[in-house]
Amino acid sequence: MPELRKDYITDTWVVFSTIRSKRPEEFKTSGRLTPAEKCPFCYGHEHMTPPEILAYRKDGPANSSGWWIRCVPNKYPALQVEGEVHRRVHQLFQSVNGVGAHEVIVETPDHDANLSDLSDFQVQEVLTAYKQRYIDLRRDKRFKYILIFKNHGEKAGASQTHPHSQLIATPIVPRRIMEEATAATRHYEATGGSCIWCDVVETEQEEEKRVVSENEMFIALSPYAARFPFETWILPKAHEMAFEDFTDDERTPLARILKDVLGRLHKILDDPPFNYYIHTAPTDRKESRYHWHFEITPRLTETAGFERGTDFYINPVMPEDAAGILRNKSTSGRS
Amino acid sequence: MPELRKDYITDTWVVFSTIRSKRPEEFKTSGRLTPAEKCPFCYGHEHMTPPEILAYRKDGPANSSGWWIRCVPNKYPALQVEGEVHRRVHQLFQSVNGVGAHEVIVETPDHDANLSDLSDFQVQEVLTAYKQRYIDLRRDKRFKYILIFKNHGEKAGASQTHPHSQLIATPIVPRRIMEEATAATRHYEATGGSCIWCDVVETEQEEEKRVVSENEMFIALSPYAARFPFETWILPKAHEMAFEDFTDDERTPLARILKDVLGRLHKILDDPPFNYYIHTAPTDRKESRYHWHFEITPRLTETAGFERGTDFYINPVMPEDAAGILRNKSTSGRS
Repeated sequence: MPELRKDYITDTWVVFSTIRSKRPEEFKTSGRLTPAEKCPFCYGHEHMTPPEILAYRKDGPANSSGWWIRCVPNKYPALQVEGEVHRRVHQLFQSVNGVGAHEVIVETPDHDANLSDLSDFQVQEVLTAYKQRYIDLRRDKRFKYILIFKNHGEKAGASQTHPHSQLIATPIVPRRIMEEATAATRHYEATGGSCIWCDVVETEQEEEKRVVSENEMFIALSPYAARFPFETWILPKAHEMAFEDFTDDERTPLARILKDVLGRLHKILDDPPFNYYIHTAPTDRKESRYHWHFEITPRLTETAGFERGTDFYINPVMPEDAAGILRNKSTSGRS
Repeated sequence: MPELRKDYITDTWVVFSTIRSKRPEEFKTSGRLTPAEKCPFCYGHEHMTPPEILAYRKDGPANSSGWWIRCVPNKYPALQVEGEVHRRVHQLFQSVNGVGAHEVIVETPDHDANLSDLSDFQVQEVLTAYKQRYIDLRRDKRFKYILIFKNHGEKAGASQTHPHSQLIATPIVPRRIMEEATAATRHYEATGGSCIWCDVVETEQEEEKRVVSENEMFIALSPYAARFPFETWILPKAHEMAFEDFTDDERTPLARILKDVLGRLHKILDDPPFNYYIHTAPTDRKESRYHWHFEITPRLTETAGFERGTDFYINPVMPEDAAGILRNKSTSGRS
């Protein structure tokens, strides 16, 4: 069973998951990318994954081909789905046993596809699958938070090239979410009832210079204090606490802006490695001041000792410049 | 002038330093390592750096060869040393202009040396130089915090192979330090006067299993919630708030344990990329509950979307196992 441990001093939590553990001399090996013949996410290889949790297919039995979206448990899960949550505190040692869910959402049967090149329909189906898994897992009272995220490219931590996202449900609310939620509540109280993300949307629309793209329901922007070059957030313009509340009306605009932003990054930065993740309210929905959003972070720079020692970031690109370049992709792009 | 900006929502600060900025298509270039012929930190190349701030040499003029430790301003500083600190808050936008110091401490004239292979004397001189720079910069009231750190290996962010450390002085106290200091004060109050790091040292000495090595004045341990495989901390056993207070008696034991830990990591992990940094009290010395220490973090795993989205870490190696391997380096080592 994996174990979560809290730092002696700060609220930093670490998941100890030795299932993928290596011998010391194996840490150097790299180049793990899988060709299509051996890819567990390709048609005909459904037996290479644990049995599916969810699949969108016209007909045919479970775990057969013919699906266009497929969700399976991660074969090497960071957390384990069986068991009760036990919290322990002894002297300076605080831990929770590693109960949680770790799933993979295969975004397309096409091994070589890129999310930004998929059809609007297919990206909508990806988002629908995300939503369906959120709603299902939220019922499980052991899970306090559900993070959906995507690692693209080996440098961004992807161990499979086939387009896929992941979901991890954790027995505690992550510190970044709690920090955001606490700050949002403080802002709400200080302003007599404003949502801080709604204020960000409104202010950035007025300022214009950090807006990357926009449609009737969503806005994409380079945040004022972007931690990484070309970091981009996507927010619903309407106040919406939780991702799984996105409406049928929002599905197409959301798919389009996500494709649009990823397409701009792909074109201008030549298919960069990136991570994105969805920040949403904790599962108990008590953090009603939360406003869900996507954060997309290309991996173009390395963090080093200064960042590790301080939690500061160093970014060599001003967000105004990044937004300008992304907005005008037709002139600055290379392909 | 660089600029520091705070995130709209959380206390995350970002240093925008465009001095090293690249065009979008240049982010992919790598392999920047410098051969000795072109190395600005080798004898005879003193003119390639800005004029030295400090050097240890028997005789000879400043900026000539013959030194054994040399400290110079970083040629591409993240922060700029001239100017007053201005703090600005406007709507959701909070910034501080990028006043600070950014220096390089060249640890030896030997281009190909490794810190753990240097003589005890030479490592003591490195530590003395660190201390001297701390004491000098602490007098400058604009600087609220001074971080000394080392990036070793390209994957750890080093752009020069020649052994060197860096120092960055910042106009605000970094969030990680404030978190630690706040937690330490809380612990002090809750326990009626205990230092949390003193308690860590005592408890880990009793538990034994996470201790890597120890001498009369210092202890090296794998922390209970190590964020990274083989992460190791070095702490003074006596309560000491600030690094620059280390005594003449502590100099040799400190040099020896630092060499010892780096040597174990080098041997067992085959010269891994790593970062270390010194955590110490802010320059105003008001955080008297602080207890300075080294944190050494090898870079063997990649953080990905889950870590970025949550501030959780995933570590595949239990600290008890890491400590066991590092303790018994003679049997597990490869060379």
